[in-house]
Amino acid sequence: MIRVSVNGYGTIGRRVADAVAAQPDMTLVGVAKMKPDYRAKIALEKGYEVYSGDEKSRLAFHDAGTESSGTARDLVSDSDIVVDCTPEDVGAENKKLYEQLGKRAIFQGGEEDATAGMSFVAQCNYEKAKGRKFVRVVSCNSTALCRVLNAVDEEFGISKARVVIARRAADPDEVGKGPIDAVVLDPITVPSHHGPDVNTVLPNFPVISMALKIPTTHMHLHSLIVSLKSGATYEKVEQKFSNTPRVMLVNGKKDGFKSTANIIDMAREMGRPRNDVYESIVWRDSIKVLDDELYFFMAVHQEAIVVPENVDAIRAMFGEDTRQESMAMTNKSLGIMR
Amino acid sequence: MIRVSVNGYGTIGRRVADAVAAQPDMTLVGVAKMKPDYRAKIALEKGYEVYSGDEKSRLAFHDAGTESSGTARDLVSDSDIVVDCTPEDVGAENKKLYEQLGKRAIFQGGEEDATAGMSFVAQCNYEKAKGRKFVRVVSCNSTALCRVLNAVDEEFGISKARVVIARRAADPDEVGKGPIDAVVLDPITVPSHHGPDVNTVLPNFPVISMALKIPTTHMHLHSLIVSLKSGATYEKVEQKFSNTPRVMLVNGKKDGFKSTANIIDMAREMGRPRNDVYESIVWRDSIKVLDDELYFFMAVHQEAIVVPENVDAIRAMFGEDTRQESMAMTNKSLGIMR
Amino acid sequence: MIRVSVNGYGTIGRRVADAVAAQPDMTLVGVAKMKPDYRAKIALEKGYEVYSGDEKSRLAFHDAGTESSGTARDLVSDSDIVVDCTPEDVGAENKKLYEQLGKRAIFQGGEEDATAGMSFVAQCNYEKAKGRKFVRVVSCNSTALCRVLNAVDEEFGISKARVVIARRAADPDEVGKGPIDAVVLDPITVPSHHGPDVNTVLPNFPVISMALKIPTTHMHLHSLIVSLKSGATYEKVEQKFSNTPRVMLVNGKKDGFKSTANIIDMAREMGRPRNDVYESIVWRDSIKVLDDELYFFMAVHQEAIVVPENVDAIRAMFGEDTRQESMAMTNKSLGIMR
Amino acid sequence: MIRVSVNGYGTIGRRVADAVAAQPDMTLVGVAKMKPDYRAKIALEKGYEVYSGDEKSRLAFHDAGTESSGTARDLVSDSDIVVDCTPEDVGAENKKLYEQLGKRAIFQGGEEDATAGMSFVAQCNYEKAKGRKFVRVVSCNSTALCRVLNAVDEEFGISKARVVIARRAADPDEVGKGPIDAVVLDPITVPSHHGPDVNTVLPNFPVISMALKIPTTHMHLHSLIVSLKSGATYEKVEQKFSNTPRVMLVNGKKDGFKSTANIIDMAREMGRPRNDVYESIVWRDSIKVLDDELYFFMAVHQEAIVVPENVDAIRAMFGEDTRQESMAMTNKSLGIMR
Repeated sequence: MIRVSVNGYGTIGRRVADAVAAQPDMTLVGVAKMKPDYRAKIALEKGYEVYSGDEKSRLAFHDAGTESSGTARDLVSDSDIVVDCTPEDVGAENKKLYEQLGKRAIFQGGEEDATAGMSFVAQCNYEKAKGRKFVRVVSCNSTALCRVLNAVDEEFGISKARVVIARRAADPDEVGKGPIDAVVLDPITVPSHHGPDVNTVLPNFPVISMALKIPTTHMHLHSLIVSLKSGATYEKVEQKFSNTPRVMLVNGKKDGFKSTANIIDMAREMGRPRNDVYESIVWRDSIKVLDDELYFFMAVHQEAIVVPENVDAIRAMFGEDTRQESMAMTNKSLGIMR
Repeated sequence: MIRVSVNGYGTIGRRVADAVAAQPDMTLVGVAKMKPDYRAKIALEKGYEVYSGDEKSRLAFHDAGTESSGTARDLVSDSDIVVDCTPEDVGAENKKLYEQLGKRAIFQGGEEDATAGMSFVAQCNYEKAKGRKFVRVVSCNSTALCRVLNAVDEEFGISKARVVIARRAADPDEVGKGPIDAVVLDPITVPSHHGPDVNTVLPNFPVISMALKIPTTHMHLHSLIVSLKSGATYEKVEQKFSNTPRVMLVNGKKDGFKSTANIIDMAREMGRPRNDVYESIVWRDSIKVLDDELYFFMAVHQEAIVVPENVDAIRAMFGEDTRQESMAMTNKSLGIMR
Repeated sequence: MIRVSVNGYGTIGRRVADAVAAQPDMTLVGVAKMKPDYRAKIALEKGYEVYSGDEKSRLAFHDAGTESSGTARDLVSDSDIVVDCTPEDVGAENKKLYEQLGKRAIFQGGEEDATAGMSFVAQCNYEKAKGRKFVRVVSCNSTALCRVLNAVDEEFGISKARVVIARRAADPDEVGKGPIDAVVLDPITVPSHHGPDVNTVLPNFPVISMALKIPTTHMHLHSLIVSLKSGATYEKVEQKFSNTPRVMLVNGKKDGFKSTANIIDMAREMGRPRNDVYESIVWRDSIKVLDDELYFFMAVHQEAIVVPENVDAIRAMFGEDTRQESMAMTNKSLGIMR
Repeated sequence: MIRVSVNGYGTIGRRVADAVAAQPDMTLVGVAKMKPDYRAKIALEKGYEVYSGDEKSRLAFHDAGTESSGTARDLVSDSDIVVDCTPEDVGAENKKLYEQLGKRAIFQGGEEDATAGMSFVAQCNYEKAKGRKFVRVVSCNSTALCRVLNAVDEEFGISKARVVIARRAADPDEVGKGPIDAVVLDPITVPSHHGPDVNTVLPNFPVISMALKIPTTHMHLHSLIVSLKSGATYEKVEQKFSNTPRVMLVNGKKDGFKSTANIIDMAREMGRPRNDVYESIVWRDSIKVLDDELYFFMAVHQEAIVVPENVDAIRAMFGEDTRQESMAMTNKSLGIMR
């Protein structure tokens, strides 16, 4: 049993904790968070050990009448590995603690590739993580892109990939962020950081990305334009994606998937916890090959898509399971079909 | 075992079907819907019998390669009772079929009180539904209001209730409805229909409502101003609501419930299916008694709040369980605490 | 000619500057702002003298190649009166400078009543501002409420006023603020500060307010419930509002004003600069008298409604015009009918 | 003086009417609309002759106490040319009337190219419209694209253009349309109709478009990826766009244009009527040349951008002015710099 702790209990941390708790070969030692809010209380009701982020946070828990089980340092000390899900750039700071305590750690996509020294997407480079002390799971957008671009590159060869990312501006429970009625260029310059980030996992072709922030909370929407080296057809692309792990094809017209809202609705109907969508969602009817270029739309559930990757990264680092074994185990526990 | 069918598989029908399927004393015979979309396919994957709404719809299912088990008429014929969850005003039309087949039926709040002859909220008038052929479960807003106003009236006596309802403009999967950046007066005139609708259940005091439509998808938000007959205090109100069935008090400041988004987030954390909130949510720190007037904020999950009422209405009509027995059974199956 | 300067060039400052420049008896000396952005450049193109907020800001202007005419201190020194339109709480700090330079100043509703010692709405208490050194124009919501409540109180006597305010969460050009898909209780407690703020101008009856923040950018929407001392009818209320300055009645059903969006659209059609609505907008068909209570909906253009008040406050402080003279002059310059 | 009438007084019709009225060589005979709402009343206050759309509409005007000056047929009969601004597909129907009365007509982008037989963008093909009976001004998105692509093609040669269009889902006064919190694929298939529509004006290179609908009301946002035939640099592109008519370059970082909201805010600051932006807006800092591909962001004000095109189309059809003369006259009247 791998003893896993989760430091940071926001959008990602909460999900990784539940996913770890659902693995047959892992134990969730506990979670660390800063505020003694309703999320902390529900975690306690689920039976999780809840630690405070630091000493100040420990006092806040105490004052709220919710005693924490110690601080993040205590939690990490008692674990084999920590999944760091703290906000952007905090992970790099926390690395010192993990090194000091001699613990393995996984960082999220908000950290630099250099912080961990290796960027991870299970179906692209699982084996590379074997035995490592530190691994970085790439961001939601990069994870989704790596899955589909890796598949396309395997089958047809990619000479250049371009993607326009319409980003949800806030997670559903972040009520302070906007915009309300505008499109924000974020960044204004081209390319955005997303393309180069994909290259930390898939270095063999250029990925040029342009990114917008729009007033939605549920999913990112990618418009992909990919130049191919060898002849593709709709059928071949559809066939390849049908066999690509953690990619789900949906029928827009036939089955009524008109929007990102329908994807989330599907997850609710399927009984997924928190309506989570772990798969890269590709609209089958959007796939189009024109000359040597492949076009399609993809939706990315920013809250959930990196969850299976974190679980696989844990196993990869301890090195006892193959990629296939780990992914199968993770998929089964989360209800992912393939 | 009561054999229950669900006619209409939209926002309410899908949830009522799942709730019925979860009752120990009921069998879900099947569900009827118009389109063979992803919702139909997931229903089939769950093992539900799926019927088409009518003959035309039956052909649409056939053409889509998804055979239906028959039409709504077949489904109703095979049931003891049908829960009609079709769109507004369709239920009144369907009543003829139900009468012709001699079947009991429950209608939703989109129908007139006169269609069923009785409007229902479990904790207000369960007994009145005993033995009836037809019952109408009132709308989400009316259900939520009846629960809290009935409690306040029991304890303090109400001379007049006023409520301003900020209504979510569309359900999460309804992408064609707006507004996007505006407040719509709906209706422009005062009072809106909501107050009189509450009076179909609680006839003893006036309820004046004003209603707005705003660009959100998740919950209605009620601002209540209630004139009382006898002296209330914060403590007494808090105490009463703490003991009122299907009312949940939340702490805004202390536990971080700043918005309706946090309520939905809570449901996700609690593992509620589809993040459903069956309770009327009252912010504890919004409760204020000033002279003889009581003020508070309440959030209403329009997708879910009538689900337990539909289940209780079924039992009430068959008349074998008491209110307490039925509500306890329903609550247990849905994870409602009280 | 009164020499007026405007310190702060955000939502309010930009409009006050234009309004001052349009008065026959005033000269706009200049405006002070912090950033050399497009707003500064357009101000220069209009021929305004643009000053930097402080020394640091002066350097920022210089680095951007847009020389400022000096700092805010220089600007104020050269004026008879300054309209302080800086962000909340900054005005209180600036007061020291204004006192030191011996200059009159007007503050906005973000400051405390105590900072100026008097809170102002032209049609309620113009005369009280005569000869004062400091005056505070109340916030957009308070201004709108004072206009209508003062009128109702004059005609019928108010025993208690209650208002639920659905607040736009951000101004149109504020893209960083949310929420996107939620209602935020702001504040969670009752009453919000708005009622007491009305009482700084109209102290004779209680005003209880409840406030929500919703995902819109264009107008606040007030739902009013007012208890009256003497008998009112729809006709009398309609008649009174028809004669109340800076209140505009609109017909929802007959003329197609279904939402706040139509009010802004009307201003665009009328050719109002920046589509500004200076009037309190009351829906005629929402006016309802039930027993001794008056109900109606009112929309408030948060960007514009205080602009005429600032202009009148300037004149009041210099004391040479009567209320009627000043309001008439201001109205004429801004296209306000009454 | 060309006697011009405007049939349809919605988003486009209202603006075309004002623009026609502002031309020294044109007379606005009148406008026709269906409903006697506030827009009709303000048109009358401006001194426009208002006609009803048809006989039924004429009665509606009469019942509302607002007499119309006749029907659309009367209006067209009395004009030299009609600008048809009726909803999509109605124009094609109206063509019969215009032919019957022997009148010239301009159609909007909602009609097919074949309806008019020629699609128009002033700076691309003004001369082609000379002497024609019927001309179609292309849609807002096509107009904006034609301006920039024509310029790029002139300077560098285009081998292929790709564009992802994030479309505002509703105009500001359309409160019934959504989505509220979702991205709608519209259409799901690739390419959308926008690319081929550009080819009705610029037939010499393929334009592949992908289109999304997002919850905003103010502007469309285009992400362009253009393959060039000959070597371009940032400087050359910037230089070319600086000299292209009706294209405005803005500085995102330096001048604070972070979003589409800032563009609309700029128009408000500039005193543009209805905050209209007639220019294709290109972010200077988004321009990037990578190998043989040009990338940039462009914003399109859907309400306004076709207005100058309609004016120029009128002149072109009567054939007395050159392109330069007409565009200069139009620009001057609307405050367009170039």
